[in-house]
Amino acid sequence: MKAAVIYGAKDVRIENIPEPNATAGNVKVQVDWTGICGSDLHAYHHGMGVSETPHPVSGRSLPLTLGHEFAGVVTEIGEGVSGLAVGDRVAIEPLIYAQDDYYAGLGKYNLSNTFGFLGLNADGGFAEYAIVGAGKVHKLPDNVSMEEGALVEPAAVAFQAVKSSDLKAGNNVIVFGAGPIGLLTIISAKAAGAANIIAVDISAERLEKALEVGATVSVNSLEEDVDAKVRSLFPLGVDVAYEAAGAQATFTSAVHSLKKGGQLMIIAAFAKPVTLDVTPVLIGELKITASLAYRHVFPEVIALISAGQLDVKKVITKKIGLDNLVEDGLELLIKDKSQSKILVNPRG
Amino acid sequence: MKAAVIYGAKDVRIENIPEPNATAGNVKVQVDWTGICGSDLHAYHHGMGVSETPHPVSGRSLPLTLGHEFAGVVTEIGEGVSGLAVGDRVAIEPLIYAQDDYYAGLGKYNLSNTFGFLGLNADGGFAEYAIVGAGKVHKLPDNVSMEEGALVEPAAVAFQAVKSSDLKAGNNVIVFGAGPIGLLTIISAKAAGAANIIAVDISAERLEKALEVGATVSVNSLEEDVDAKVRSLFPLGVDVAYEAAGAQATFTSAVHSLKKGGQLMIIAAFAKPVTLDVTPVLIGELKITASLAYRHVFPEVIALISAGQLDVKKVITKKIGLDNLVEDGLELLIKDKSQSKILVNPRG
Ligand SMILES: [Zn+2]
Ligand SMILES: [Zn+2]
Repeated sequence: MKAAVIYGAKDVRIENIPEPNATAGNVKVQVDWTGICGSDLHAYHHGMGVSETPHPVSGRSLPLTLGHEFAGVVTEIGEGVSGLAVGDRVAIEPLIYAQDDYYAGLGKYNLSNTFGFLGLNADGGFAEYAIVGAGKVHKLPDNVSMEEGALVEPAAVAFQAVKSSDLKAGNNVIVFGAGPIGLLTIISAKAAGAANIIAVDISAERLEKALEVGATVSVNSLEEDVDAKVRSLFPLGVDVAYEAAGAQATFTSAVHSLKKGGQLMIIAAFAKPVTLDVTPVLIGELKITASLAYRHVFPEVIALISAGQLDVKKVITKKIGLDNLVEDGLELLIKDKSQSKILVNPRG
Repeated sequence: MKAAVIYGAKDVRIENIPEPNATAGNVKVQVDWTGICGSDLHAYHHGMGVSETPHPVSGRSLPLTLGHEFAGVVTEIGEGVSGLAVGDRVAIEPLIYAQDDYYAGLGKYNLSNTFGFLGLNADGGFAEYAIVGAGKVHKLPDNVSMEEGALVEPAAVAFQAVKSSDLKAGNNVIVFGAGPIGLLTIISAKAAGAANIIAVDISAERLEKALEVGATVSVNSLEEDVDAKVRSLFPLGVDVAYEAAGAQATFTSAVHSLKKGGQLMIIAAFAKPVTLDVTPVLIGELKITASLAYRHVFPEVIALISAGQLDVKKVITKKIGLDNLVEDGLELLIKDKSQSKILVNPRG
């Protein structure tokens, strides 16, 4: 079968590899669409996040099939799997972790010490077929398209950040970063009842997209003073700030944007440590929190997509075939800021 | 009457000033004991925290009677005050704020934008008599001594930090800083059911006191690697870290000490910004939160002292008369690390 295999930084090859079979506890999924994620870009451009030594759960290291945002159809059922059938349309929750992990035992499997991803620490979804743990495939209702199915994973990242935040209906929020996760955070905050959603980015094209998906105000931080703008709109500040940019400037603005008692929810990874002035945190009893990946939210995300409450497909800006993954996907996303989520068809 | 009046940095004078009368909505309290707080030291040594221009609520600025941790007996009732009587033994909640403040209206009066303290932004308790808002005096049961009454205020700071934290009975916690607030945090955490309480400080004398009031382990961070010690005791980390020291080293150790999903609760003011590595915050979904002064907890603190659950009097290391406030109090506390809470008798 055809697959996009990563060997290291700047080395992703479209190859023919043996078609896998569903082993015990797993199902085989024929992949329809797989999204390109920021972590795929990190893996491709910098060789980061991919297992160079055998991962403790998968036992796998480079080379690996890339891709973790995917949906498809079950074509084979492994031994001991119940509740799934050949033909089921499913979105994949691409997490791996040891079942006996302390945090997994608490139900907080995203905090597992052995936490990893299909597509980074085991074979993933940029392939015609993938093998997935039976507990990690989630059935899609008929009215959820396969394209939407491929967006459940990034939507789950954003949705969990919103769901686990203090956001209540009627609140005002700000979202830093209008890349795919920022956009999906805007969409999730809207679904959760946010009254006003301020989007902050340095790209006019991304901010246009932010308004299109539900932001009520956009602020280009290269052109406007974010703090002044926020206070002009909301003199007391906003209730929740979502940090989907991961930089010092946005982190500081996020702290400054908050109402007393407000919450800064970190979603983005930060390449460098930040400087934090503790005084406004103490005086305002601010909360700085974080949300990592997701746990237990795929069914809710799928239900909200099905109900028309989470219009995730608006973040799709391009669809390509697997043969063009490097040039029209991994390379293009660095150059073209009008691109948000690019979906890849493994049979294209 | 006799009072300790602050005129500026290093200028606290024991003077005779006119005895005040209870104005409308206020009561007059004959002060029994007043504790010396870290903020009194800041005011005396650096002229910090005291109003140099008229405070928006009190209209007062320097010179001011210092002192905000006090208890006494009601001797006069102002017009319109009900529910209080001459002879009532009371602890004073020394906060002032505008009644029409947005946060006060939400019940979060400690977050009020006009928030200030008797003894820093209005006349306080280092005097024979003080005038206090009727809603800010809290009756003491007979089995709570006047010395304990003077400790309700600092105990409320620590108690609120513990109460508003995620601490659940059986949890393990760490407390950075074993000054009066750190010690009262240990006492509060014990009352809230903490199983193990690690105290961290750089003073052997303070750590000895920490063990005396309820810490189960002490770590001198000048002699031991705090991170290594915490992980040797609790390989997964602790549930809650209380930051009552306010320094870069303790802040960083606090982040490192936590279990995934754990909480860093800031109680101390920080003189300088800190560097924060966001990665462990994101990977561990850590929470960084803060607790400022107190709101609505005085009755609970008094009830727990009365019930023998909060043994606050253990933090008292010295009692002096008002005439010796500067030498045996404000100066001594800087020099002698074996001192924790010094109580002052205004008629001494
Ligand atoms: Zn992803
Ligand atoms: Zn104090």
